[in-house]
Amino acid sequence: MAAKAAKIRPIGDRVLVKPVDAQEVKKGGIIIPDTAKEKPSEGEVVAIGTGKLNDKGEKIPFVVKVGDRVLHSKYGGTEVKLDDQDYLIMREEDILGIIG
Amino acid sequence: MAAKAAKIRPIGDRVLVKPVDAQEVKKGGIIIPDTAKEKPSEGEVVAIGTGKLNDKGEKIPFVVKVGDRVLHSKYGGTEVKLDDQDYLIMREEDILGIIG
Amino acid sequence: MAAKAAKIRPIGDRVLVKPVDAQEVKKGGIIIPDTAKEKPSEGEVVAIGTGKLNDKGEKIPFVVKVGDRVLHSKYGGTEVKLDDQDYLIMREEDILGIIG
Amino acid sequence: MAAKAAKIRPIGDRVLVKPVDAQEVKKGGIIIPDTAKEKPSEGEVVAIGTGKLNDKGEKIPFVVKVGDRVLHSKYGGTEVKLDDQDYLIMREEDILGIIG
Amino acid sequence: MAAKAAKIRPIGDRVLVKPVDAQEVKKGGIIIPDTAKEKPSEGEVVAIGTGKLNDKGEKIPFVVKVGDRVLHSKYGGTEVKLDDQDYLIMREEDILGIIG
Amino acid sequence: MAAKAAKIRPIGDRVLVKPVDAQEVKKGGIIIPDTAKEKPSEGEVVAIGTGKLNDKGEKIPFVVKVGDRVLHSKYGGTEVKLDDQDYLIMREEDILGIIG
Amino acid sequence: MAAKAAKIRPIGDRVLVKPVDAQEVKKGGIIIPDTAKEKPSEGEVVAIGTGKLNDKGEKIPFVVKVGDRVLHSKYGGTEVKLDDQDYLIMREEDILGIIG
Repeated sequence: MAAKAAKIRPIGDRVLVKPVDAQEVKKGGIIIPDTAKEKPSEGEVVAIGTGKLNDKGEKIPFVVKVGDRVLHSKYGGTEVKLDDQDYLIMREEDILGIIG
Repeated sequence: MAAKAAKIRPIGDRVLVKPVDAQEVKKGGIIIPDTAKEKPSEGEVVAIGTGKLNDKGEKIPFVVKVGDRVLHSKYGGTEVKLDDQDYLIMREEDILGIIG
Repeated sequence: MAAKAAKIRPIGDRVLVKPVDAQEVKKGGIIIPDTAKEKPSEGEVVAIGTGKLNDKGEKIPFVVKVGDRVLHSKYGGTEVKLDDQDYLIMREEDILGIIG
Repeated sequence: MAAKAAKIRPIGDRVLVKPVDAQEVKKGGIIIPDTAKEKPSEGEVVAIGTGKLNDKGEKIPFVVKVGDRVLHSKYGGTEVKLDDQDYLIMREEDILGIIG
Repeated sequence: MAAKAAKIRPIGDRVLVKPVDAQEVKKGGIIIPDTAKEKPSEGEVVAIGTGKLNDKGEKIPFVVKVGDRVLHSKYGGTEVKLDDQDYLIMREEDILGIIG
Repeated sequence: MAAKAAKIRPIGDRVLVKPVDAQEVKKGGIIIPDTAKEKPSEGEVVAIGTGKLNDKGEKIPFVVKVGDRVLHSKYGGTEVKLDDQDYLIMREEDILGIIG
Repeated sequence: MAAKAAKIRPIGDRVLVKPVDAQEVKKGGIIIPDTAKEKPSEGEVVAIGTGKLNDKGEKIPFVVKVGDRVLHSKYGGTEVKLDDQDYLIMREEDILGIIG
């Protein structure tokens, strides 16, 4: 999935995040009731933006990197759908923390 | 179409985007139901702005270029109609990512 | 008309724009139904402002020039009436693009 | 009138403007119907402010000068009454253009 | 009155203003109807603030001084009562002009 | 009381203020009706913040100091309760003036 | 608990705060009525952010450190749940003061 998502290069200080809190299915096919609803803002960074420039024209490095599991603002970002998978494009600013 | 759209030079950090998600018609004339409604914010960059200046009077380069397929904010930009074709003039800031 | 409009010197980064999309009358006096309503934000730049200063006190050059046909934000600018002709004074910022 | 208005020194980047579009009376006492209502934002600059400082502490020069006939934003400025005459104190920023 | 008001040192770019437009009483005790209602925003500067610092840490000088009769925004400032006299603490920014 | 309040170190440009206008009780236990209601925004500075940094990383000095009697914006600050005493933590910006 | 919370690294100038004012249970199992409701904004800093950069690209040091008991704005921060424990991720800016 991350490979496919890499088809989008976010602009500027944005990152592409794949939500991980929905439709988790246990091995063997039994659907686990979505207890994850209490923390709906978890995701995995699948693409990093082209970079934001500071006043001197230098790129500001990202704090997060591809593969990071992150907590992000519930209302941050814009939903995009790629190959029937929902993603969020958000500013790194909207990411609250890195898990793990 | 892109050739005609090039008749507009966007000002500053704006770009001209031609929407690609509406009224797609299959060869042979059968209208395909608009399943694209889930991602209504896709377009093709058909013209780049005159450039935005930083505090030192230097032009800030654009990240997108003509021909780029982009995802943009659903509510970003202003609609303009040229030769019966709708376009959007928006700030590069309103472009979320480049596809492909 | 442009000559008369030149009687106003816009302040700072403003420009004076004469709308071109209304009351177009064909030669011979037949009124053409206003099909231009779909692109109501077209105009001609008839005067350039006194210039905006940057932080160093230097004037920032205008991108548009007198005679340019422009697309501008439908809600940008302030209407002024001179010799029974409506004009718009708007910031160059409110101009979206140059046509042609 | 301008002489009396000079009793107020506007602070900073403000100017004092005397409206010219109301209660125009023709010689001989016949009141001319107020056709000026369509351009209610015309005035004459009667006093210039103490000046606005830039970041370096230098005064930014005014573009308008006393005696200039100006167009200004209908809702800009604050009304003040001096010797039964209404004036407007507004920022130079609220002046749209100089007439003439 | 000004002497008592001097008991307050306004912070930063604030000034202390004593309103002069209310309860004017003629010698001999006859109360003059408050015709001053039309210009309710007149006052006398009775104390100057501790000063505002610019980005370099230098104090920005005040334009007004103690004793100045000023016009100020009707809604600017905060009312304070000292020894049964109302005063206004406002930013110098809220003062529109100096009278006289 | 001030000693106890000193248990809180305000962050940045904040100060800790102890209100002085409520529940004043005369010696002998007779409660004085709260005539202070007209100036409810008086307090005593009981702790100074850790300091605010300017753009160069230098600390901006406070204008107020511990022990100062101050007037502050009625709606500024956040109430905190320590040992059954109410305090306000507010930015120095919200302090209007120093009394005395 | 703090050890577990350390599994989250807040981004930028954010800190992770564990609330301390709820569900305090006395030894022996008797639930103490929540008298702490009057000061609901108390917490313990359990993780410090990756740091905020100033305009020169230098990290701005944090004022608070892990283990600090803090007062914070009641409405600041975003709730996150980790291992059945609620935490708040907030900007250091939202912390009002350090207790003790």
